Amino acid sequence: MFIAKVVGSVVATQKTKSMVGCKLLMIEPYVIDPKSGDRMITTSRSLVAVDTVGAGENEFVLIVQGSSARMTPETKSLPVDATIIGIIDSVHIDRKSISLE
Amino acid sequence: MFIAKVVGSVVATQKTKSMVGCKLLMIEPYVIDPKSGDRMITTSRSLVAVDTVGAGENEFVLIVQGSSARMTPETKSLPVDATIIGIIDSVHIDRKSISLE
Amino acid sequence: MFIAKVVGSVVATQKTKSMVGCKLLMIEPYVIDPKSGDRMITTSRSLVAVDTVGAGENEFVLIVQGSSARMTPETKSLPVDATIIGIIDSVHIDRKSISLE
Amino acid sequence: MFIAKVVGSVVATQKTKSMVGCKLLMIEPYVIDPKSGDRMITTSRSLVAVDTVGAGENEFVLIVQGSSARMTPETKSLPVDATIIGIIDSVHIDRKSISLE
Amino acid sequence: MFIAKVVGSVVATQKTKSMVGCKLLMIEPYVIDPKSGDRMITTSRSLVAVDTVGAGENEFVLIVQGSSARMTPETKSLPVDATIIGIIDSVHIDRKSISLE
Repeated sequence: MFIAKVVGSVVATQKTKSMVGCKLLMIEPYVIDPKSGDRMITTSRSLVAVDTVGAGENEFVLIVQGSSARMTPETKSLPVDATIIGIIDSVHIDRKSISLE
Repeated sequence: MFIAKVVGSVVATQKTKSMVGCKLLMIEPYVIDPKSGDRMITTSRSLVAVDTVGAGENEFVLIVQGSSARMTPETKSLPVDATIIGIIDSVHIDRKSISLE
Repeated sequence: MFIAKVVGSVVATQKTKSMVGCKLLMIEPYVIDPKSGDRMITTSRSLVAVDTVGAGENEFVLIVQGSSARMTPETKSLPVDATIIGIIDSVHIDRKSISLE
Repeated sequence: MFIAKVVGSVVATQKTKSMVGCKLLMIEPYVIDPKSGDRMITTSRSLVAVDTVGAGENEFVLIVQGSSARMTPETKSLPVDATIIGIIDSVHIDRKSISLE
Repeated sequence: MFIAKVVGSVVATQKTKSMVGCKLLMIEPYVIDPKSGDRMITTSRSLVAVDTVGAGENEFVLIVQGSSARMTPETKSLPVDATIIGIIDSVHIDRKSISLE
């Protein structure tokens, strides 16, 4: 899994029938800043994930990828390869909470 | 999943029997422009995806990869690892629609 | 899936029993030249794929990866993660056939 | 699989029901230092993995990814794509134990 | 699949029960040298794979990844995502055998 920030949303009216009603969010994977080690920074990559936990824009979330993205009640048997399975409260490095912003 | 632009098509006469009749499109994954944040730019990578939604050249589409690419009625049990499952109408970042061109 | 060029072959006498008789080809993934847009260029990566369509050296082929690589009659239940499922006749970008060489 | 260092932990109160009680650790994949060959260095990437072996911060661990991350008793059917399946005692290159720190 | 060189071994006493007895080798993926085309060079990446064919240090091997890594008798149902399924005798490019060293 990895940590990502919700940066937006995606609208696709014409889609595979089973995907109707799925909330599609635009996310950016984040990594620990290799220089400071005390905050997370964007990787500048953009992915689309299905939301199952009520995540909102600018929130940090936990993303699961691959076949495991289908292992939630909301995504079972769906053609999805990335699912938001949690909202991040905090990340602790060296026992200190680091900045999520 | 990720957003991609349909840039072309692929013809392969000699292929695995189950793939006969599959529409194969050339796609380029797109990401949010890390500089401006208000448009999408190509990653310059090239992949081949099966179309299940009637996508056309220059349209932006939603791609699912891996085993989940087989989770549509059209691709069930096929040897495919990337499927177009939707046509993108719009992408919203910071509650504003960004440019798709 | 992606387009690759067959650049060679691999010999491995000592191998998992189920793989005996499998034709293993060395392939290089190709992408559309981001500069000219009218030809395909190598990514300089090297992978090994199982051939199921009678591909030969210097031919352009279609590769499927992951669990989907096992979705052909020849590769069912085999420990393979990349299979050649077609021979590319042509690639069309902006409705023009581009160079494969 | 790959070797990673546990660098921290992740707290997510609001999450998919099946994930409640899962210990989520922040890990950084490590590679053999290509220059010296006698120690492991960080890749500066950050992933989140489920712990099944009681790993602690600063320990080197073995990570399995993808659907195989669900092949432990603790992660069966969970929406997880990375699991810690072992704690690394030592890595031997050219028959010498290399530095893990 | 890809070609890799066995560069070492990994010891992990504390691990998931099903992995006890598994031989874990450190491998480096190799690619054809893009400059000369007549030898293979390291990618300087480091992965851990389960050996099923009796591979030894400095040998070139064939690696399968993902769920297909579980498709050998020795790795069935194990939490492994990379398995050595063959020992490379030779690689032929342009019908000439290239250097493996």
